[in-house]
This record gives sequence, C-alpha cells and structure tokens, in this order.
Amino acid sequence: MRLTVLAGGIGGSTFLRGLLEARPDAEITVIGNTADDITLFGLRVCPDLDTVMYTLGGGISQERGWGREDETWVIKEELAAYGVEPTWFGLGDRDVATHLVRTQMLDAGYGLSAVTEALCARWKLPVRLLPMSDDRIETHVVVDDPDNPGTRKAIHFQEYWVRLHAEVPAHQVVAVGRDKAKPAPGVLEAIAGCDALLLPPSNPVVSIGTILGVPGIREAVRETAAPVIGLSPIIGTGPVRGMADKVLAAVGVESTAAAVARHYGARAAGGVLDGWLIDTSDSAQLDSIAAAGIHAQAVPLWMTDEKTTAAMADAALTLAEAVRR
Amino acid sequence: MRLTVLAGGIGGSTFLRGLLEARPDAEITVIGNTADDITLFGLRVCPDLDTVMYTLGGGISQERGWGREDETWVIKEELAAYGVEPTWFGLGDRDVATHLVRTQMLDAGYGLSAVTEALCARWKLPVRLLPMSDDRIETHVVVDDPDNPGTRKAIHFQEYWVRLHAEVPAHQVVAVGRDKAKPAPGVLEAIAGCDALLLPPSNPVVSIGTILGVPGIREAVRETAAPVIGLSPIIGTGPVRGMADKVLAAVGVESTAAAVARHYGARAAGGVLDGWLIDTSDSAQLDSIAAAGIHAQAVPLWMTDEKTTAAMADAALTLAEAVRR
Repeated sequence: MRLTVLAGGIGGSTFLRGLLEARPDAEITVIGNTADDITLFGLRVCPDLDTVMYTLGGGISQERGWGREDETWVIKEELAAYGVEPTWFGLGDRDVATHLVRTQMLDAGYGLSAVTEALCARWKLPVRLLPMSDDRIETHVVVDDPDNPGTRKAIHFQEYWVRLHAEVPAHQVVAVGRDKAKPAPGVLEAIAGCDALLLPPSNPVVSIGTILGVPGIREAVRETAAPVIGLSPIIGTGPVRGMADKVLAAVGVESTAAAVARHYGARAAGGVLDGWLIDTSDSAQLDSIAAAGIHAQAVPLWMTDEKTTAAMADAALTLAEAVRR
Repeated sequence: MRLTVLAGGIGGSTFLRGLLEARPDAEITVIGNTADDITLFGLRVCPDLDTVMYTLGGGISQERGWGREDETWVIKEELAAYGVEPTWFGLGDRDVATHLVRTQMLDAGYGLSAVTEALCARWKLPVRLLPMSDDRIETHVVVDDPDNPGTRKAIHFQEYWVRLHAEVPAHQVVAVGRDKAKPAPGVLEAIAGCDALLLPPSNPVVSIGTILGVPGIREAVRETAAPVIGLSPIIGTGPVRGMADKVLAAVGVESTAAAVARHYGARAAGGVLDGWLIDTSDSAQLDSIAAAGIHAQAVPLWMTDEKTTAAMADAALTLAEAVRR
C-alpha cells in the first residue's frame, strides 16, 4: 500500500508515528512543508523537515517535540557572548551539525530534495521524505509595527511564532517566493500514484495550506485517483497543538473542525477533501461537514499516545476505503 | 611604546603573553598569519588568528594550546555520524560558534580584518590583532601522492600538519593566492610606525615566512625605522614546538638557530633582521650569526612559563634598544 502524507512539523510527525504503527508495511511518502525554513547565522534551517526526520529517525527530543534529544547549547551561548542576533531561536549543537551539512550541500549546488535524502540516509527513515519544493519559499506574517504606530510590517513566520508566540494579531500570511516555485522532484508523482492521500492534523494555514499552495500541488491533489482524507487539527475551538487558531483568524476561518473542513473544501466542489475526521466531542458538526459534500466521521483525535494515534490513522484509512471511487 | 609583532599560532601567542607581562603598557599590534586558514564544512577557520585571540582573551585551552577551554565535541560527533569528511580536523562546539560568526560576516561582505576586530571585541584583547591580509591565501604543501606512485600532489597545509603530522616529506611549500594579495588595512602602517618589530619563535616558513611574503610586507620590514629583532624557533636542531624542522627542510634550510637567522638575513644585506636571540645552549653559533651581519645574543629561549617568556621578550626589547640606529 502506497500512502502519501502532507506534513508540517510536530503534528505531522506525531501522526506519522501512529501511521507507521497502524501500517508498518506501507510504502509511505511524506511531503514536508518548507515554508517555515529560515537562514540563521548563515545556516539553512528546515524545522518541519527536521522534526519529521528526527522523530521518525529516533533522534527527536521527546520532551520538546522538536530538536535533538541529549542536546547541548554551547553554540547558542557562544553566539550570545559574541552579541549575535537573533537570540530567540534555539539552535542546539547537535541540530547545528545537521544545518551545517545541509548548508554546505546547498552551497555546493544540490537541491533541497537531494540534501534531505542524504540527511535522511543517516537516520534510516522508514518513510521517503520529500520537501514540497526545492525552491526557496518563506512564510511571512503581516503584523502591526510597534516602532511605527499605525503601520504594519511583514516578519518571518519563525519570528511571529517563536519570538512573539503568535501573541500579536496576524493580519495576513504570505508565502514569499511560492508563486514562482515548483514542486520538488517526486512530489506530483507521489500524489498521483498513491493509494490514499492523508492530511494529518497539522496547521491548515502555514503547514498543509502552504504545501497545497505550491503551484501544481493543489491541482494534483484534486486530480489524484486516491481518496484524500484529512484529520481535524481543531478540537472544540482550539488547536490540538500549536497556535493554528491564530493563523486561521488571519485567513478569516473560524476555529472549528467544520470550518477548517469547509476551508479545505470537498473535492467534488473544487476543494481537496473526500473525507474528514473530527473528534468525538465535535460530533454535532458532522451534519454541517456532510452538507459541504465531505464524508465525515467522529473518532478520538487527541494524539495522547502512539496507540490512540495509530487508531486515528487506521480510522483515516478505513474512511479512505469507504469513500474510494 | 608601540610594538609590532608578526605571529603564527601557538608560539606567537605564548610569546605575546610574555611580552604583555614584560611591557604591560605597550601598545601592541599583532600581524597574524592567515595562510593556514581553511574552509571546513562551509565554515571559514582561521587557526592562527583564533589561537592569538583565545590565548590573549583568556579563552584558550591551556592543555592543548589551541581551541577553547571547556570545549565540547558534539558537532564533530554528529558530522561523523552523517559521514561528512574530513574527520581529522577537530572543530569543537565553542570554536564552531566563532567560525559561524566569521563566515556569516565574510559572506555579508566584511573584510577579514573587520571580522577579526568584531570577534576580538568580545574578548577585550589587550592587543590589536590584524590579519596579514584580507585576501585569501592558503599554504599548500607538495608531497608524494601515495595513490599514484612517482607523482606528487599539493595538499592543504592543515592536511599535511594535522592529518599527516608532517610525517611525509614536504617537497615544496606554496602560499596559494599570495602573489596577488595585499596587506590588510593597517599592516604596513603598524610596521612603519612602531618602536620595535618583533619576530617571535614562530615557524619561519609557514608562519613568519608566509607573512613576510605578502607583497609589500617584506619591503616594509626592510624599510621601517624600528629595529627588527627575532627569536630563534630552533634550539639545538629541533623546533621549540611544532614541526618547523620539517618545513625548513622543504625550503633547504638547516634546522639550527644560525641557519634560520641567515635564512631571514641581515637588514643591512637585504634581509629582515637587525638582531637575533638564540638559546644559551646554542651560544657556539653566535659568531656565525654575527658574521652574517646580525646582532646576536644568547638567552634562555624555552618558553616554559610566563616569567621565562617575559624575560625573553625583555631581552628582545633590550637588544632592540642596543641596535636602534
């Protein structure tokens, strides 16, 4: 069974662990978000790809959910001693080594997909991890400029997310460079050639939404013969994890499972979804989702442990079989 | 008193500590060798400049004589896990932070002298440290090519020194890029405008010799009104430290204090020396050095502790006064 999964960072990785538990023999391709990538201290950092790689490769910090386990922070300390900005992004020493290898390979002319493949070789990943694009795309968020009252400025998503904790209003989310980007080698084929396409409970705006926005990807998702099943990243009115509600507001989408489903839209109506899993506590929304032409089902969606997450993945694949055309 | 010192790495730094002890109020400019600089993992590494900076800034590993104290080696371990070459050069984590800052500044267009000044600001150096040149110069050593018997190849000095421990014959030493290089801003002025110019017991070929070879520097040393005093890096037939004897052989110079003095030459005869300090155990060579037109004196030259080193520096400055024209 060939499965393709669009993934952000922590949510996507956690879901993938469950999927691997549920379908250990599946041939899984992960299309990772690269729009929260950032260049720091001359190093190209790919937070979402690395979170997937470290999580599935066994190197992730279980405690933080990002970065490496047994991490040390000597470089961060030294950079601060040199007075180098920014200080709000935590690059651990082990993590820096990954970025050094990546940056050196990119500078030598390798594409990000080739670099990602080389990095993943060390981790013996049980999936194939593809960046959504080899072209540079960076999400910027338009916020009020505190230095110039009454005006706004665009800041890198990481500054909005990590430094400002998404605590200031986001007026707009822009994926800079995306309009001219192409899907990375293998991406369209992985969407067209899979038996089921899954959208994990990742951020629907800055993770999944950004991937879908790469020219050609949304079209490929609409046209694939495989059923497309999503899992709601919202339970009640809050995100399963992270701050999805903040960026949903920026794009004018209510923070509910049904609103996110309508935002993605039914494939039959020009959207990307065939099926949508919501949490059992939200089952009152099932009818409204079905009214939008999306097969909906309510199951426990809190990814509290691998077993629950595997059950979610299993439910998603069962729904995929039910809606297969 | 304005003193200018040409310096390699460990020998130069050790001498400088003694000089600072002997003349705490002197205004010291250090012109550092940059030809053993190397780009590793995309990072620009300047071993000699950093050894001076860490030594005089209090950050040096006392045990190794190079790199940082309280160093950790996580990055080296990770790079090896990724299978990245080379593995023979030890970049500690604290050290990597220095190279990250340097590389980022160089990439942003700053000259190496501006970068060095910025790095030294953190360490509150008691001297002004100038790279010999802002232009890229790299020492390569011509050795036998073990893969192609009967042929030779040029390898980076660091590979010869660190990986091969200078244990293979060096047929030639070439400072690649030096013929088109210019002295860094301030270098010629520091040579012309000082009260004494000192050549510490650094490697006469790949440290001091390389600095003198930058177009314009040897001429400035010949023309300065200041006395020029050197300290022999050879005691008996061996180097005070390091492997100077190996590279002396490559340039056809015998490993003795007198032979190195003649290699530098008397200023009166087109060379760079007015005075030359040799170790007391070599005093039999005093006459031969004097015969070459160089004022020679024998004093204890083993830099075993700061006090002995300070006495050496004091002797060099006393000799400078004696030979001042």
